[in-house]
Amino acid sequence: MTGPDDDERWVRRALELAQRGPAVDPNPRVGAVLVADGPDGPQVVGEGWHHGAGTAHAEVVALEAAGERARGATAYVSLEPCAHTGRTGPCAQALLAAGVARVVHASSDPGAGSGGGAQVLRDAGVEVRGGVLADEADALVRDWRFATVHGRPRVTWKYASTLDGRVAAADGTSRWITGREARVDVGRARAQHGAVLVGVGTVLADDPQLTARDADGELLPRQPLRVVLGHRLVPRGARVLDGDAPTLHLPTHDVRAALAELHARGVRSVWLEGGPTVAAAFWRAGCVDDVIAYLAPALLGAGPSALGDLGVTTITQARRLRTEGVRLVGDDVRIDLSVGTADPDQHHEED
Amino acid sequence: MTGPDDDERWVRRALELAQRGPAVDPNPRVGAVLVADGPDGPQVVGEGWHHGAGTAHAEVVALEAAGERARGATAYVSLEPCAHTGRTGPCAQALLAAGVARVVHASSDPGAGSGGGAQVLRDAGVEVRGGVLADEADALVRDWRFATVHGRPRVTWKYASTLDGRVAAADGTSRWITGREARVDVGRARAQHGAVLVGVGTVLADDPQLTARDADGELLPRQPLRVVLGHRLVPRGARVLDGDAPTLHLPTHDVRAALAELHARGVRSVWLEGGPTVAAAFWRAGCVDDVIAYLAPALLGAGPSALGDLGVTTITQARRLRTEGVRLVGDDVRIDLSVGTADPDQHHEED
Repeated sequence: MTGPDDDERWVRRALELAQRGPAVDPNPRVGAVLVADGPDGPQVVGEGWHHGAGTAHAEVVALEAAGERARGATAYVSLEPCAHTGRTGPCAQALLAAGVARVVHASSDPGAGSGGGAQVLRDAGVEVRGGVLADEADALVRDWRFATVHGRPRVTWKYASTLDGRVAAADGTSRWITGREARVDVGRARAQHGAVLVGVGTVLADDPQLTARDADGELLPRQPLRVVLGHRLVPRGARVLDGDAPTLHLPTHDVRAALAELHARGVRSVWLEGGPTVAAAFWRAGCVDDVIAYLAPALLGAGPSALGDLGVTTITQARRLRTEGVRLVGDDVRIDLSVGTADPDQHHEED
Repeated sequence: MTGPDDDERWVRRALELAQRGPAVDPNPRVGAVLVADGPDGPQVVGEGWHHGAGTAHAEVVALEAAGERARGATAYVSLEPCAHTGRTGPCAQALLAAGVARVVHASSDPGAGSGGGAQVLRDAGVEVRGGVLADEADALVRDWRFATVHGRPRVTWKYASTLDGRVAAADGTSRWITGREARVDVGRARAQHGAVLVGVGTVLADDPQLTARDADGELLPRQPLRVVLGHRLVPRGARVLDGDAPTLHLPTHDVRAALAELHARGVRSVWLEGGPTVAAAFWRAGCVDDVIAYLAPALLGAGPSALGDLGVTTITQARRLRTEGVRLVGDDVRIDLSVGTADPDQHHEED
């Protein structure tokens, strides 16, 4: 049987396998490796990764590959084996049934329904070790993990404004505030999220298509769910209804209810494109986790601002973010921020 | 006599000398080197640089150092010798009187009153070569050159706002939007300009001191002229009247008249700190040349914007700038921009 000294090596292999799965999916990306002692030392007897919701879990794929050779082997899994019966059976049971002697996993499963697989295995007498390369494994399933813990998708608010914070001119025109490179950047980012969300006001004002496209303007293979929020009807000819990607109209202003609905539909990450009223509603609901701002080197002096009223009246109530990075995208400045614990101290001392 | 092959070497020396002069001054920084043929080849017989308005010009300092050895020598000057009589006599005449045989200069003098020195020298039979290392020399006297050409100081508009373009919260509070590092950056920048300008509204609302300070909060040796624009009275106890730096109240809303007044007082560069109304007035007058934006990773959702009404109503009329650089200053993003010819094409094509 392989021992602790080799654990990192095989967990790393499981992480490599996990990355072959779909990055945007209701389920987490998981990889599994079964290692048995052979005549020349440890030997891989089965490997697998999860191909996405509705397909077999990584452990099951690896067990099937290994067959009888799984008996007495060590299973390396990038995520704690699940203990629940979803569209597939619980992996903890499958590992037990196959006679696996030891299980090493990276991430733990935070799910109230799916978690607890490690305990199930321990109770059955299997040696379990968790937390190996956990940071890398957590990063690989960041959105799924966030959604599992919070019961809603992770939300990234994207906006494009002038330097003076305007998202349109006084007459409502906004094409184009940012340049081509920034728009291509947005087209790619949409493909990396489960859903793209706007208010119906944005659909009525700008008629955006909200598809994920490459630099040549071609539709990318994976399209996000297009979500329109609000009570007003989406007009029959609206581009969001063009069939290039699925579209969901949620006739509500309740941000938490909308996110719960998306979570139930398997959406783990939302790319929120505004406008100002919907963005402010998400902020007031405490449902913005990351911000990506594209600032054009331009000034308007009038027109709607990127963000509507937050109920903030004085400077000490300002929402403080953490700057994660800043770079030029074409002529525009892209700033990445997270809505975490910023350090407010340095902003409040006296002159 | 030294020839063209050596010209760059000696002009570079003149540029080095020029940099010893004050960077912020009514007059340009100028260096001069006199080179004569000696027994072992070319030999410096006199050097000088301009120490600031009211002191001798670089050529005169170099001629005095050389004495009789100036006769037949070549004069290397970082700027075309002046032809006018200001607080000192014309340098072109001084070079002629000293019997200099050849003059090589970098920048040409764009001044209507001071320029033409090269022609005066040529007319008197002196060989003149101009334009050697002209770009470097122009950069050294950028503000003076701009002011001489345009008849007004160069204006850099600085503002500090939240990501959503607010310069204060709804109740008017604004201390502090940006962090300590950004405020130190601003303190240093003030020292590099001839004047710091705000509207009287900013004095009444925020009571800023507008001094140039180092990172420890100590007053820097050189303070800019503090200029307050607008008809309302500056209150007796206002911090801009505290005597730590000179202060000028210009009771006008006429931007061009104000800048002409500052130009007449020897101010070649203005650091414009707003607020929104004064900034918009400068924009409408076409009198903003550079922009430095400090954007705090914070959101307010309400409050005054960085820039007041420009008369822009539709997106194609947006004022387009050129992004010169972007970097983090502490937690804040600093964006440097110039108000030059941006490329508007990429912003107007269809999707």
